[in-house]
Order: sequence, then C-alpha cells, then structure tokens
Amino acid sequence: MRIGLDIGGTKTDAVAVTDADEIVGRIRRPSGHGDEAVVADVVESVRELCAASDVSAADVTSVGIGIPGLVDTANGRVLHAVNLGVESLDLASVSSARLGVPVVVENDVKAAALGAAALRGESASMAYLNLGTGVAAGIVIDGAIWRGSRGTAGEVGHISVDPNGRVCSCGQRGCIETLCGGGALARAWGRPGSLPVRDIFDAADRGDGDALRLRADLFRGAAAAVRVLVLSADVESVVIGGGLTALGDRVGDGIRNALITDAKGSPFLRSLHLDERIELLPSGSPAAALGAALVGAHTPQKEIAAHG
Amino acid sequence: MRIGLDIGGTKTDAVAVTDADEIVGRIRRPSGHGDEAVVADVVESVRELCAASDVSAADVTSVGIGIPGLVDTANGRVLHAVNLGVESLDLASVSSARLGVPVVVENDVKAAALGAAALRGESASMAYLNLGTGVAAGIVIDGAIWRGSRGTAGEVGHISVDPNGRVCSCGQRGCIETLCGGGALARAWGRPGSLPVRDIFDAADRGDGDALRLRADLFRGAAAAVRVLVLSADVESVVIGGGLTALGDRVGDGIRNALITDAKGSPFLRSLHLDERIELLPSGSPAAALGAALVGAHTPQKEIAAHG
Repeated sequence: MRIGLDIGGTKTDAVAVTDADEIVGRIRRPSGHGDEAVVADVVESVRELCAASDVSAADVTSVGIGIPGLVDTANGRVLHAVNLGVESLDLASVSSARLGVPVVVENDVKAAALGAAALRGESASMAYLNLGTGVAAGIVIDGAIWRGSRGTAGEVGHISVDPNGRVCSCGQRGCIETLCGGGALARAWGRPGSLPVRDIFDAADRGDGDALRLRADLFRGAAAAVRVLVLSADVESVVIGGGLTALGDRVGDGIRNALITDAKGSPFLRSLHLDERIELLPSGSPAAALGAALVGAHTPQKEIAAHG
Repeated sequence: MRIGLDIGGTKTDAVAVTDADEIVGRIRRPSGHGDEAVVADVVESVRELCAASDVSAADVTSVGIGIPGLVDTANGRVLHAVNLGVESLDLASVSSARLGVPVVVENDVKAAALGAAALRGESASMAYLNLGTGVAAGIVIDGAIWRGSRGTAGEVGHISVDPNGRVCSCGQRGCIETLCGGGALARAWGRPGSLPVRDIFDAADRGDGDALRLRADLFRGAAAAVRVLVLSADVESVVIGGGLTALGDRVGDGIRNALITDAKGSPFLRSLHLDERIELLPSGSPAAALGAALVGAHTPQKEIAAHG
C-alpha cells in the first residue's frame, strides 16, 4: 500500500493507494505549523489513515508528500514553505526514520499535476494550472512530471503579459500572477473580508466597477496562462485547480469565455480550440495526495535500502 | 552517409554527415520556387553534394529535409510553405522515389534546434529561438525534438505580452512576433530598403526616434521569448538564430542587456541568470542542415522497407 499526503497551509489530505493506483482510504486533518509540527503531522496522518482504512502499518511500502514551497526532491528537503512556517527541513529523511518506510517529498503543484493526470487517465501530455495565493503549473508528459533543467518548469505565474500592469511580488510588472493570483487580487481589492476573491465575484455580480475589473483580470490572466502552456510545451489539455476554483463554474465559465473572446479576432487562436481543452479540477479532488502517493511509489531502490 | 538539406526561401544548404555525426561535405545553391522546383532542388542538391564530397550515391542511406511551413512529419507532407510557393506537397515520398533512399521532412526551425543542440553537445534541454520573418522556437529534450501534442510546441511568437501592442498577422495584439519578427518590424518601420532591420539599427545608431523604439522592441520581444521558454519548458539554454542574427553582436548584446535590465528589479529573474543562458548561432552555421540529416537518420524501419 502506498500513502500520499498533501500538506496544505491549513489542512492535510491523506490517501491510501493500492498497487493498481486505486484510492482505498482517505482522511483529512488540520496541518501543523513549524518543523516539528509538520513532521508530527506526517506521522499522525499515516497512523490515522491506516486505522481508518484498515491497513496495517507493515503493509505501507512508501509515503509520498506533496508540500508547498521549494522542494529539493533529490534530498527530500523542503525550503521556504512560508505558509507552514518551514524555512529548511529534511522532511524525507526525518519522516522516513520515524515511519520506517521510504519517504519522497515533492512540490504540491507538481504532485497535483501527476495526480490529476492519473485521475483523468491522461498520461500523454497535460498541464495542471494552480490558481491559489500564487500561480504555477505542473506539466505531465508521458505519465511523468516534467522537471526541466533548473526547477522553473511551469512557472508561468511570473511571465509578464502587460508592461503597464500591476507590480508583482517577484518585482516584475504585469506578471500573470498579478492578474489571477489570489494574493495579488486580494491586495488590489484592499477591502476587509476573509474570502476576498469570493467578495470580488459577489461585488462584481452587483455591478461594482473595481470588482468587475479584477474579476476580468482573473479570467484574462488564467487564459494567458493556458495559452502560454499550449504555445510552449504544447500540452493537450490544461486542468485548473487551486483555492480560487472553489468558486466552480463562476471561475471556469469566465476563463472559458475569456479564451473564446480572445480568439475571436485570431484564426490562429481559434484553430487551437483552447476553450475545449481546459477543465476544472472538481472541488475536494484528491489529486495532490494521489499524485504524492504515485511519486512516493517511485522511490529509488538505494533509498529503500538505506531506510529499510 | 546521411544527407541533410535546409531549404530556405532563397538558398538551400546541404551537408553530408557520417554515422559519427561529423559533417564531411557541404554545398549551398539557390532554392527553387513551386512544387516541381523544390523537388528538383532536393535531387540536384544531393547530386551536387555527393560530387563535391566524393560520396557515391550508393553510400547515401538517408536524406532529411528541413523546410519552412507546416510539416506533417508522419506523412512527409509540406503545407503552406508560402516563401517556396508550396501549398501542399508530398515531399518525402516524391523525393524518395526519385532518389531511391528514405526521405524524412521536418519543419526547419525544429531541424535547426536539433542541429544546434548537436553542435553544442547540449542534449539535455535546449531551445532554439528563430528570429526570422516570423518568430518560433524549437525545443530539444534528451537529444530529441520536443513535439508536443498538436504541433504548437515552441510557438512562442504568438504569445501576447502587451495588450496595447501592435496587431499581429495572427490577429492578436502585442504578440512577441510583433516586437521581434523581421516582417512585423519592417511593416512598423515602413520605409523603403531591402534590409529593413539593418536600416532600423543603422538609423537607431544615428538617433532616429522610430528606429530606437523598434530596436528596443526587438530586444524586449526576444528577451520575453527567452523568459517564456525558461519559465514554461525550463530549458537550460536558448540558442538564438535566424535572419535577424546576421547583425551579430548588435542583436546579441541588445537581447542580453534587455534581459539584464528587466531582471534589475526582480530578485526572482536575477536568480535565473538568463543573460548567461543565451547564445547566438554563429553566422553561416550548418545547424538546420545538420539537424535535418539527424532527423533523416531516424527513419522508421518500415519506411526503409517501403522505398528500399
């Protein structure tokens, strides 16, 4: 049995996955904050999941962890996972020592990309576009995460598409993330409320001018990200997930309409049928945890020997 | 011996390549125009090259052809090669029947990408960015051309980076090609002369305002293309070629400076060291013809049987 964990800023999603890639158990629990709490979260999630799924700890062959932040996959180290209060943590080796099984750590967006591809049965070429606080994509080619040369594959959030756009947290102007990142939208909105993007949509529905502009920005930013992914890596489809997609069709239809509108004046764009090649990840999808389990199952043999 | 041809709008470059990927002969001759002239060009180029390189026709095991336009590689068909006056031509099968050897046809930019990677000894991950009349890139991953799902891999020329930019021939506004494509620059310049981009550079050197703006556009467009390639496919390096690079360092230094300037305000961009990851293809490089020869050498066995 392979276990996959998706450790988010507020909750951890854990799934038990058979050798046939079937999910046979799932639990969710609040995430910890800080190095020790994150490690305890891993150990406790595995224990709870085994109990809930009637899986013996001895039957667990691997654990994969998807986590936000910069991940050094070769060494299982997590860097700058700001939302989890982790600056640098050898998560794989510390967790593996506690659990007695091999542990692999992966960036959460890349894990979700792999999981989404598995759930769709699409292994040839797919991108997963994550619209969360920030914006990034994971690319899956021939059933494997596309890693690129230096870890910036799928970093479409920081491609500028407007030289006169808002300044991005990265220092550039007009990045895709300034248009469709939850953090950037909340800053541009600037009004109180715990769910700023939902507030923007509700206010736009009431005709508020600022909200209408920001909602349109979200749609055109996501549409730009889809175009970049297709016109560079040429993925067949783009699955869109992340916190902002909790708004469901209100987001999905808007992005689809933006793709259609942008293609109106361009026979070239129309020939790409981009509006038919996007799909929203269903709310509550276990894609990221499943992807983590799949990553974990590909533990190199030497690592199994080291911890076995 | 493998032969590679790069059929351009004005001239055809032909190389003879050993099994060790070494170029042992090269000729250049004017290109033909129209279906029959292009086929005759292929046959004549092979004949001349064999004579010049002291290679017997019987020793030629494959011919690869790089050609501008849309190429259906599976069927060896060329579509919409406007500069060559070809609308639809079964170039592989017709040429193969005349030459008695297997022939493979490939888009010229993709062939040049493969050839440039071979010349640099860079096989892991590289993009070749072609700044010609239009703008497109070829991506080489693990020594093979990255094809993507629908033939739009590397079509970075038609990613919009300015919603208020000039209208592109594709119908969108502010495409990278409107900034750094030779055709778009010539249209925007609008003055007589057979080498408009050179004229723009010369006029910019004299302080002409329009020319200064267009030259800056070229640099920022190419810099944007480099960023897109690194932040999507995450290639290690970007080799830049095409007609506009005939201006050598005047173009190369400008693109490098644009990458440095754009990164000034962004620690994220600075961390990518993009200015150190670009390189101009030397003038007269046989990259495209060599790449065509390499593509031709990978003829599927069934095709050899069919024409052998």
